[in-house]
Amino acid sequence: MNVKIPSTVNVDLANERKKCTFNPVELTYFLDGGEEKTRERRELETFFLSDSQFLDKIPTDYLSHKEKYQIAVKKSCMLFRKIKEYQEKKGTGTSVALFSSVLGGMLGSALIKDSTPFSLHYVMFLPTILGQASEEQQYHWLTRAWNFEILGTYAQTELGHGTFIRGLETEARYDPSKEEFILNSPTLTSFKWWPGGLGQTCNYAVVVAQLYTQGKCHGIHPFIVQLRDEETHMPLPGISIGEIGSKLGMNTVNNGYLGFKNVRIPRNNMLMKNAQVLKDGTYVKSKNDKLTYGTMIFVRVSLVKNVAAAFLSKAVTIATRYSAVRRQSEMKPGEREPQILDYKTQQYKLFPAIATSYALRFSADWLWDIYNSVNADLEKGNMGGLPELHAMSCCLKAVSTSDSATFIEVCRRSCGGHGYMNSSNFPNTYGMVTAAETYEGENTVLYLQTARFLIKAWNQLKSGGLLSSTVTYLGKIGAPKSQYVHSLDSLLQAYQQVAAG
Amino acid sequence: MNVKIPSTVNVDLANERKKCTFNPVELTYFLDGGEEKTRERRELETFFLSDSQFLDKIPTDYLSHKEKYQIAVKKSCMLFRKIKEYQEKKGTGTSVALFSSVLGGMLGSALIKDSTPFSLHYVMFLPTILGQASEEQQYHWLTRAWNFEILGTYAQTELGHGTFIRGLETEARYDPSKEEFILNSPTLTSFKWWPGGLGQTCNYAVVVAQLYTQGKCHGIHPFIVQLRDEETHMPLPGISIGEIGSKLGMNTVNNGYLGFKNVRIPRNNMLMKNAQVLKDGTYVKSKNDKLTYGTMIFVRVSLVKNVAAAFLSKAVTIATRYSAVRRQSEMKPGEREPQILDYKTQQYKLFPAIATSYALRFSADWLWDIYNSVNADLEKGNMGGLPELHAMSCCLKAVSTSDSATFIEVCRRSCGGHGYMNSSNFPNTYGMVTAAETYEGENTVLYLQTARFLIKAWNQLKSGGLLSSTVTYLGKIGAPKSQYVHSLDSLLQAYQQVAAG
Repeated sequence: MNVKIPSTVNVDLANERKKCTFNPVELTYFLDGGEEKTRERRELETFFLSDSQFLDKIPTDYLSHKEKYQIAVKKSCMLFRKIKEYQEKKGTGTSVALFSSVLGGMLGSALIKDSTPFSLHYVMFLPTILGQASEEQQYHWLTRAWNFEILGTYAQTELGHGTFIRGLETEARYDPSKEEFILNSPTLTSFKWWPGGLGQTCNYAVVVAQLYTQGKCHGIHPFIVQLRDEETHMPLPGISIGEIGSKLGMNTVNNGYLGFKNVRIPRNNMLMKNAQVLKDGTYVKSKNDKLTYGTMIFVRVSLVKNVAAAFLSKAVTIATRYSAVRRQSEMKPGEREPQILDYKTQQYKLFPAIATSYALRFSADWLWDIYNSVNADLEKGNMGGLPELHAMSCCLKAVSTSDSATFIEVCRRSCGGHGYMNSSNFPNTYGMVTAAETYEGENTVLYLQTARFLIKAWNQLKSGGLLSSTVTYLGKIGAPKSQYVHSLDSLLQAYQQVAAG
Repeated sequence: MNVKIPSTVNVDLANERKKCTFNPVELTYFLDGGEEKTRERRELETFFLSDSQFLDKIPTDYLSHKEKYQIAVKKSCMLFRKIKEYQEKKGTGTSVALFSSVLGGMLGSALIKDSTPFSLHYVMFLPTILGQASEEQQYHWLTRAWNFEILGTYAQTELGHGTFIRGLETEARYDPSKEEFILNSPTLTSFKWWPGGLGQTCNYAVVVAQLYTQGKCHGIHPFIVQLRDEETHMPLPGISIGEIGSKLGMNTVNNGYLGFKNVRIPRNNMLMKNAQVLKDGTYVKSKNDKLTYGTMIFVRVSLVKNVAAAFLSKAVTIATRYSAVRRQSEMKPGEREPQILDYKTQQYKLFPAIATSYALRFSADWLWDIYNSVNADLEKGNMGGLPELHAMSCCLKAVSTSDSATFIEVCRRSCGGHGYMNSSNFPNTYGMVTAAETYEGENTVLYLQTARFLIKAWNQLKSGGLLSSTVTYLGKIGAPKSQYVHSLDSLLQAYQQVAAG
C-alpha cells in the first residue's frame, strides 16, 4: 500500500524527448529573446520558486473564499519584500516590468495561482496616473503609490455599463464655492462593479465619472478618490464598498463594488494632464482625445502575449506530457498498451493546439513591435499608425483569447477525467483565459471594431486611397487566381485572395 | 445608498413575454408529457423548494471543500426524510424514479447545486445489484440497500484505466480452502479512482476486478465489498480509501480512491446472476455477455435528457432573460439604449443555443422510446435491436453533451462579466455538463464506436443486406439529387444525401 510516486522522469517522457528532431535549447533561447534572457528568467524563477514560504501547505482549492483571499494577500506581501531583496541582490533599481513579471504572467501564476488582488495597482492605477495626471499630480501620487503608502485600483465599469462607457452614471459635480467635486451614485446600476482589489484591498481608486461643471456635463473623466482611512482601513463616510462575489476563476483578485453618496474630493484630484477644470469651474478641453487610448491599447497588446499565448503554452505542455505518459487500450492482443499520444484522434486535438500556441506567441511579438514603433511615432507627433494599431490590437486580443480558451478546453478534455481535476491546473488556466474573452473589450465588440476598420479600408480602396500595410491584400480583389502549391507562401496568398473576394 | 432590488418582474422581461406568438402553457404541457404531469412536477418542486431548510444561509461557493461536502451530506439526509414525507402524503410507495428526480436532474440541482455524494447509490449500486445479482443475492442486498442499512457505490475505473476496462488491474483470487475471494491492488495504477461517494460516504461498493480461479484469469467481474465498519465508519483492515480531490465541478460528489491489500470476501459476494464461481472454484461462464450492457446503455440514454438537454435549457433561459433585461450602447444619440437581445450578434449566440436545447430534448425522448422498445424485445428474447440502440446511445451521448457544453459557454459569455460570476449559475452548469463529455464513455471513444457502426452498416449495404432504420439513408448513395426547397423535409434529405455521398 505504501506506493511512492517516483521522483525521476517518466521513461515514456524521457524517450519522447530523445526523439526530438530539433534543438529545444535553441528554441528556448529564441522564445526568450536570447541566451542571456533565458538565464535571467531562470535566475528569477529559481529565486522565487525555491522559496518554501510560497508553497501552499494545503492547496488553496480546499479552502474557503475568505481564506484564499487572505493567503493571496499574505503571499503578495511576502512577494513585495522578496522583490526588494532581489533588486538589492542584483543592484538594480525598481521597475514596473519586474513587478509585472512576478505578480502576473507565468511566474506570477505559479506563485499565486488565482491572481493577486494587488495587480490593478501596477497594471492600471500607476499607468493611469502616469498617462493622465499632470506633472505636479504625478509627483504627489506616484511617490505615495510607488512606496505603498497608498494602494489603488481603477474603477470604470459599473453594474449597468461596461462596453458602452459613455453610458457610465457615476457623477462628479464641481462646487466652485469649496473648490471640490461631489461624487454620487444616483442609481443601483451606477455602482462601480468589477475593479480588481476594490473589495477589501485598496484604499484609493481612479474613478471614472461624468463631469458636471457650470451646469453642463462634459462626459467621463478620471478622478483620484480616497476610499478608506489610511490607518484604520475603514470605508470613509459616504462610501459603500465590498466584494462582488465568487466567480468561475480569478477568485483572489478581490473584485469589488463601490457607491458614492455626496463624497467630496479636492478639485486637484481630477487627473488634469489632458482636460482641466479651473478654480472657478471653467472647463478646459483636452487638446487630443486620442491620447487616452494609450493604456487601453497597451493592455490589449500585453493580453495577447501574457494571457492568450502564455496560458495556452502551459495547457499544451501539460496535455502533451500526459499523453506521452498515459497508456490505454490494446491494439493487438498481448501487446503493450500504446501511449495515447500515438492515437490519431489525440494528435488531432494536441497538434493544432501546440501550433496555435506558437502562432499566438509570434503574433504577439509582432504586435509588440508595431506598438513600440507607433508609440515612438506618437512621441514625434505622428499619429498616422494609431488606427491600424488600434484595429490590430482589437482583432488579435479577441482572436487570441478566444482560440486560447477553446484549445485549453480541448487540451483538458484530451486528458480525460484527470484533466477535470484541479490538480491538473487546467480549470484554473481556463478560468484565467476565458475571463480575458470578456474584460478589456468584450470579444464580440472587438470583432465589430475590426469589421469597421476593414470596411473603412475597403471604402478607402474603392476611392483610390492607399491601404495600410496589414490590409494591402484587399487590393487583390479580382486578381487572377494563382496556382496553389503546398507552401506557406501559397497558403497565405490563398487566404488573402479569399478574404479580398 | 439603500437601493432595493425589486421583487416584481422586470418591465422589459414582462414586455418580451407579452410578445410571445404561441401559447407557452401548451408547450410546457407538451414538454412535461401532459397537463397532469406538469401539475405533478410543480407540486413536487413546490413541496421541496418551499422548505427553507434547503436554502443556503451562505452560498456554498464561499465555503471550504470540506464544508461544502458536509452541507451536501446534511441536505441529502434531510432530503431522504422529506422524500419519505412526500410518499406518505401522496400515499405512494417508494420508487427509484422519485429518488432520481429529487437527487438528480433539474430539481436535484436546485436543492444541492453541486450534486449529492449519495447519487451513485441509486444510479449505479442498486441497478447493478438488480441487473447482476442472483435472486437470492438481490433479496439480501437490495433489502439492506433500500433501507439505508448500507450505502454503496460502483467502483470500476482505476487510476490507470478508464476507457479500456479489460485492462483493469484489481485482482480477486479465489481461495477454495476458505471459500473466499482475496482482493488486491497490485500497482499504484490499479487503485480505484473516481467512484462517486467513495471518498468518505459509502460503506460498501460493487468492485469490478479481474477474477482468478483454478490458476486462470477469467476477466473482469463484479463483487460486493464492505469497505467500512457499519458502526464506526472506519475503513476495514486492508482497505486504503479517501477522496481524490477538488475538481472543475461536482465537488460534493465525493469521488474517491480505493486500494486493497489481501482483503477477503465470501464467495457469495461475487454477483452471480450471469457468470459464477462454484465452491470448488469451478468457473461457470455467463450464458449471454451482452446482458451486462444494460446499465451502461441506460445511463447514456438518461444523460442525453437529464444532463445534456436539461442543463442547456437552464443556460439558455438564464442568458435569454438576461439579454432582455440588459441594455447597452446608444444606436441613435438621445435614444434609449437597446436591449442586447435586439442585437444581431447576440441573437446569433442565443437562437442556435435555444434551438439546440429543444433538438436535444426531442432526440432524447426519441431515444427513450427506442430504449423501451428494445428492452421489451429483449424480455422476449429478441436481441436484434441492441446494436442499433448501442450505436445511437453512444452517438447521442457524445453529440449531446458536447453541443450542450459548447452552447452553455456561448450563453455564459453572451452575458459578459455577469456570466462569469458564480451567482449566474453558468460555471456550475458547465461543470456538470462538461464532466459528462468524459464520464460514461469518453466522447472521442464514443464517436469511434459510432463510426464503427456506420462502417458496418456500409459493408452490409454493399453486400446487399438490410439496413436498420436509422441508417437507411446510406442507401441513397448515387441517387439523383433532388431540388432543394426551403423546408425541413428538404433539409433532412439534403443531409442524408450528403452523408450517403
